[in-house]
Amino acid sequence: MKIAILPGDGIGPEITAQAVKVLNALGESFEMESAEVGGAGYAAHGHPLPEKTLALAKAADAVLFGAVGDYKYDNLERALRPEQAILGLRKELGLFANLRPAILYPELAGASTLKPEVVSGLDILIIRELTGDIYFGKPRGVRECPDGPFAGQREGFDTMRYAEGEIRRIAHVAFQAARKRGSRVTSVDKANVLETFQFWRDIVTEVHKEYQDVQLEHMYVDNAAMQLVRAPKKFDVIVTGNMFGDILSDAAAMLTGSIGMLPSASLDANNKGLYEPSHGSAPDIAGQGVANPLATILSAAMMLRFSLGKAEQADRIENAVKAVLAQGLRTPDIFEQGTTRVGTEQMGDAVVNALA
Amino acid sequence: MKIAILPGDGIGPEITAQAVKVLNALGESFEMESAEVGGAGYAAHGHPLPEKTLALAKAADAVLFGAVGDYKYDNLERALRPEQAILGLRKELGLFANLRPAILYPELAGASTLKPEVVSGLDILIIRELTGDIYFGKPRGVRECPDGPFAGQREGFDTMRYAEGEIRRIAHVAFQAARKRGSRVTSVDKANVLETFQFWRDIVTEVHKEYQDVQLEHMYVDNAAMQLVRAPKKFDVIVTGNMFGDILSDAAAMLTGSIGMLPSASLDANNKGLYEPSHGSAPDIAGQGVANPLATILSAAMMLRFSLGKAEQADRIENAVKAVLAQGLRTPDIFEQGTTRVGTEQMGDAVVNALA
Ligand SMILES: CC(C)[C@H](C(=O)O)[C@@H](O)C(=O)O
Ligand SMILES: CC(C)[C@H](C(=O)O)[C@@H](O)C(=O)O
Repeated sequence: MKIAILPGDGIGPEITAQAVKVLNALGESFEMESAEVGGAGYAAHGHPLPEKTLALAKAADAVLFGAVGDYKYDNLERALRPEQAILGLRKELGLFANLRPAILYPELAGASTLKPEVVSGLDILIIRELTGDIYFGKPRGVRECPDGPFAGQREGFDTMRYAEGEIRRIAHVAFQAARKRGSRVTSVDKANVLETFQFWRDIVTEVHKEYQDVQLEHMYVDNAAMQLVRAPKKFDVIVTGNMFGDILSDAAAMLTGSIGMLPSASLDANNKGLYEPSHGSAPDIAGQGVANPLATILSAAMMLRFSLGKAEQADRIENAVKAVLAQGLRTPDIFEQGTTRVGTEQMGDAVVNALA
Repeated sequence: MKIAILPGDGIGPEITAQAVKVLNALGESFEMESAEVGGAGYAAHGHPLPEKTLALAKAADAVLFGAVGDYKYDNLERALRPEQAILGLRKELGLFANLRPAILYPELAGASTLKPEVVSGLDILIIRELTGDIYFGKPRGVRECPDGPFAGQREGFDTMRYAEGEIRRIAHVAFQAARKRGSRVTSVDKANVLETFQFWRDIVTEVHKEYQDVQLEHMYVDNAAMQLVRAPKKFDVIVTGNMFGDILSDAAAMLTGSIGMLPSASLDANNKGLYEPSHGSAPDIAGQGVANPLATILSAAMMLRFSLGKAEQADRIENAVKAVLAQGLRTPDIFEQGTTRVGTEQMGDAVVNALA
């Protein structure tokens, strides 16, 4: 089994190194190969998603991705900026289903900005459609405004769109995931305003007929943003489009106060996937050995479960992570009085030790 | 001065009645005239925004709006549903600037789901553009998908767009509002993905040159959603588009835990405005006399300040509201042990008494 390792920028290399260490400690034989991506891709090959990197990702069974972005690339033209790498990988690999669990580990309940009773035991799964919507819809650009009171001025414009098949397949992912959990799906849309999301609601409702054992609720995106703050534990699985999912999944992750703990998976139609931490590249702390590697290590666990058919190994890693938390080890982002502060490498080593 | 009173549905009539009572107690002579809107408009005249209602709103100096929506209208076709009334009023009256303060009253700090230290003293102002963006952009609809892997299937689509002049005028509103507050503006966009919002960022940056005394920061919408949960007090004024503003303003309101307290103003280019509570029509508690009228009463205060040139009267109302909170009076939505539970009318009466 071949795994493409794309460390990227900022803290990407150091956290990815810990996940690789953990994978190597499992006693399996994975073929791993690394390549530059994001700013590192631009620096080495003049493009955030170099051809070689894309080819490696396509040829692999799964991709382990660190994070991309650094201040030094902020002034590049948009097409060359690091985040184009992740958009390009999603599109080129057809990774349409983004799974982002928002889980609050009992040991870390204090890290949340929300009151403990509101978030303790939080365990929701956000499923974000990842290759459609206004992210990729055409036409888009800056043009002369064709009509209305601003006709003749310049205007920026984009196209939101979802085709029936795109909605169907992500709805299936959500209903099937719900069956393995609490059997409830909240489909988030803006059907009261957008044609795209009235259509989304209609199709999700249709697909739901095949899953009568799963409870389906529709919710407007503004209300969903409120309910995530008010009573997040009421959700089980949330399914939504690319744009709304970008916003809601980050808000949900932040509810836990420990975004350094949260993995994600982005899957294609055949369960090939790209796995990355939910947090970013944090260039401000890069190279200091203080970044939390657990989100990346847990992303590797998701990879074993979803793409490599090694669910027991995934369990082993997840249990090892729970064990190090129980031992009281904490990187600075989740440190609290009474726990033991450790660095990136020590945390990775502790997970390796806990595997045994 | 003529005020159009549009009570609407659900709790709309009872909360609006309290605001009218407070306005009448000021000792000014306002001409007030009511009309049906939303579901009530449909029930009386077959349309959520009857012609007579629109004409009244156009002729008035300001509009005091309750709330619209009720389960019984859920199955109407979209064009006849209650929320079309508010969309229609915004567009027809050119109400492009939506001002939504998110304030946490010290007495109500316990109502928030966030820890007191994270939200106590919260005072941010969200300025949402209200007549542009994907809310009104054309073309939109359901069509045959013209290209890509789903070509030939049905697809829903909408158009996001912002013209230069639309961005300029809302940016001016934000910078001017910031000057009267903390002199900081966070412009929220998704410039890394959307052409519309790269253009937005460019224009906001240009307008900022006229306001060098105000600090401007740009933030991606996903990050803004996180920062609202993580450290909301770091914001002063947030300015954003219609769609992002819909989501973020509701999230921000919910941070306070007392959305029943939060007013809003929607202004045109000449400070004519529509004023409404930030919460909805709550049909589940309508007619029970338990709804919190304070958001509507505070909306009337905003109306006095922004549209009717009566800032001292606005202050009087706002101080009266603070006084009733200090007296310990609470409607059920903000009730806590040790305070006095009152109904909608009693709360309105208490504000009237506190005006003296
Ligand atoms: C970097 C950016 C393009 C990306 C997105 O908007 O999808 C990021 O926010 C994410 O959620 O992975
Ligand atoms: C009712 C709906 C159309 C409206 C909106 O999306 O603008 C509401 O959510 C609001 O924020 O006033």
